Amino acid sequence: MRSSESSAPPLTPALAGAPKIGLDVGGSLAKVVFSSTGETHNQSEGLSPPDDHLELDLGDGRTLRFIHFQTKQMGDLITFLRDVVGVRPGQALEVTGGGAFKYQDLLSKKLGVQIHKNDEMQSLMNGLSFLIRQHSHSTRRMQGSETSASSSRGFGSRGRPATDSIVFRFDVTSRTRVPVDLEENVYPLLVVNIGSGVSILKATAPDKFLRVTGTCIGGGTVLGLARLLFNASSFEEVVRLSEKGEDVLDLKVRDLFGERSGSRVLPGDTLASSFGKIYALNTCVSATELRGSLRKEDIARSLIHMVSYNLGYIAYLIGSVHRVRRVFFAGKYINDRPLTMQSITEGVNFYARHYAEAWHRAAQPHDRARAQAEPHAENRPAPTALSPPAASATRQHEAQEGHDASTEGSPTMGTAADLADDLGSPPEPFDVLFLRHDGYLGCLGACGII
Amino acid sequence: MRSSESSAPPLTPALAGAPKIGLDVGGSLAKVVFSSTGETHNQSEGLSPPDDHLELDLGDGRTLRFIHFQTKQMGDLITFLRDVVGVRPGQALEVTGGGAFKYQDLLSKKLGVQIHKNDEMQSLMNGLSFLIRQHSHSTRRMQGSETSASSSRGFGSRGRPATDSIVFRFDVTSRTRVPVDLEENVYPLLVVNIGSGVSILKATAPDKFLRVTGTCIGGGTVLGLARLLFNASSFEEVVRLSEKGEDVLDLKVRDLFGERSGSRVLPGDTLASSFGKIYALNTCVSATELRGSLRKEDIARSLIHMVSYNLGYIAYLIGSVHRVRRVFFAGKYINDRPLTMQSITEGVNFYARHYAEAWHRAAQPHDRARAQAEPHAENRPAPTALSPPAASATRQHEAQEGHDASTEGSPTMGTAADLADDLGSPPEPFDVLFLRHDGYLGCLGACGII
Repeated sequence: MRSSESSAPPLTPALAGAPKIGLDVGGSLAKVVFSSTGETHNQSEGLSPPDDHLELDLGDGRTLRFIHFQTKQMGDLITFLRDVVGVRPGQALEVTGGGAFKYQDLLSKKLGVQIHKNDEMQSLMNGLSFLIRQHSHSTRRMQGSETSASSSRGFGSRGRPATDSIVFRFDVTSRTRVPVDLEENVYPLLVVNIGSGVSILKATAPDKFLRVTGTCIGGGTVLGLARLLFNASSFEEVVRLSEKGEDVLDLKVRDLFGERSGSRVLPGDTLASSFGKIYALNTCVSATELRGSLRKEDIARSLIHMVSYNLGYIAYLIGSVHRVRRVFFAGKYINDRPLTMQSITEGVNFYARHYAEAWHRAAQPHDRARAQAEPHAENRPAPTALSPPAASATRQHEAQEGHDASTEGSPTMGTAADLADDLGSPPEPFDVLFLRHDGYLGCLGACGII
Repeated sequence: MRSSESSAPPLTPALAGAPKIGLDVGGSLAKVVFSSTGETHNQSEGLSPPDDHLELDLGDGRTLRFIHFQTKQMGDLITFLRDVVGVRPGQALEVTGGGAFKYQDLLSKKLGVQIHKNDEMQSLMNGLSFLIRQHSHSTRRMQGSETSASSSRGFGSRGRPATDSIVFRFDVTSRTRVPVDLEENVYPLLVVNIGSGVSILKATAPDKFLRVTGTCIGGGTVLGLARLLFNASSFEEVVRLSEKGEDVLDLKVRDLFGERSGSRVLPGDTLASSFGKIYALNTCVSATELRGSLRKEDIARSLIHMVSYNLGYIAYLIGSVHRVRRVFFAGKYINDRPLTMQSITEGVNFYARHYAEAWHRAAQPHDRARAQAEPHAENRPAPTALSPPAASATRQHEAQEGHDASTEGSPTMGTAADLADDLGSPPEPFDVLFLRHDGYLGCLGACGII
């Protein structure tokens, strides 16, 4: 949908010597980056369309091109590598991802190449470092050509078309990409790479990183359930559908507390349970009829929200444990789509905001004094650090008011101060960043860009 | 399936005065506890069967009885309260959960009662405190009557039938409940209450607690998806089915890396992506045919594993942020079923074990020295704190071995020591506890047990 960038000013040369090729063969998708000097598009007819809008001009007549295939269609990938990229027998092929092992024999047999296996996490980090450098070079060049170059804003838009920025935030209010000026030192940072599974890395320098953990609810979960529920054939289809969906299948606070009361304890539209409303729907029909009565757009939306919010929360918690406040979300799950970036950013912010609010409440004695002056205020929720997805009803039992959980200032009740003690220091804002080439970090790293 | 406990020795009296009734009306289920002096079972014919095996003898001729209804069948609940429990007009009814708001008008109109709303979190904590006290009394009484009473083991089985223990661990190897002797002071602790949604509390004393957070992937998600996928009619049905299922729908490490290579980097059966294997299944059939070819037992198992592992991990992270190492899992999601307790315990242990291993590796310099002596060892995974669900391929690229991520001792690479620094202190074992009355904490607390 976006126009090709091949006419944009060249970026800093980062590749030297022969044409570069990098493969990242994951559980669902095989990603390819390759450098070329000419127009190759016509030769790829009948295969996956390349991601033209991602092309990077290397400034020496070569362009980095990007394309992905379904891993289960390795034949297409092999044809593409031979006929379009021009891979020849005897050549070395840089491969990362689990497929570097699983398809080693197939690739070397069909193409006659020597497979170089590249560590998945190292490739991811190399790809990220390359993109951060390209972003900084590009930002400085843009600033040099702008009259507003003397501005010293730390972060913020520079008036560049947002879709061109290599690194950006996603503004959940305007629902737009916001280019960022990265600080000189962006470390420490987390990388949450969302493919079929999820890997989470902490890096304190480009070459100093640790894979902290992974989790099993990722892109493969969305795709698997979407295939079962409405015969989705690709992840892109799920995300496209989800952008037209509504969250009618999720249980909200108002569904638990009733329309009248919801607003007194929590915003009624707070998400309580993904897919939690289905059980309350028509019980007289079969699952087949029920599925037939639901819009696949709505199912897709609930799937994306479920996974994104969960990952946002896990990233927030890992950031708290490991004292990192900047996180790059990457992987083909995100795919530069507004809804995935929106829901992930909201997921992180939901928790970050409320931890921060709890901290600042605890740090302001007058709030506490005011709370103590109103011990019998009705309908105040139990002390809670976060606007909870599953909300607390408010005790209204007169006879037990001495134990009333709504009395935030009560000496026996937990308050935000306890939370603040646990956190150790005031929570800083959490910086959630995305990359235009989000799905291609691994193969960029594998192709030899250091 | 288990026999009634009504003939067991009476527990410590904890209720005084009139018959007690507590209701907890959640998003999917309405739970009821009530005290009675006689046999009431015959009168509940045609309604939900009561949870007879949970009955608690109060030692004064009264017995606490437990029963649950589907929230969408409030008529059954109202009939039961009037005809079996004997609720009369003018009486006060203690209610907690979102339904205390949502169904306030319905309940007071149909039964002519006055609704006392009880804070959900306070009720949960009161119910937990009551059960912990009952467990301790019961344990001491059992010890007094045993010849092995002089044993001073801190935790462990006392030879009591495991199914009778109010508080217990679940041993994932023998797949059995293990009764525990709780320490005098069990605080601080986390409570992860899994209903339709999930609430997570931190308590530093019975009456000092804070709702830390919630998350949207809980029982409602399992039930909603199970209804859509194979027409499940209750959560109990899903769990029963899941216990006969196999994990054939989940993407494992061996699916990513291939059978031959999987074992070199990670155990091949490590979970990489819940439902992640579906996408690789037969692509020529429709979703309807595909669903028809799958066993609902296997779908149920993947659903339970997905939610349990995720909650186990989130509990582990919250425990790390808030410096708590003991967690009670409760809520009707668990329902005292082996598979839910197994998968939750495994979920916590998976991460706790590997964080602990990383710490101890970092604390043993000879391991580090040995790693440095083998910088060119082949097939060693990238430094990783955890056996990752999505695994790291191993770099085998000779030309770049200087940057080889497999060199754990390399001065530029992150090591377990970084992780240890972040954690601040050696990770202690994580104590995962369950309660026989897991779904009834809220209504136990609401019924006036302090």
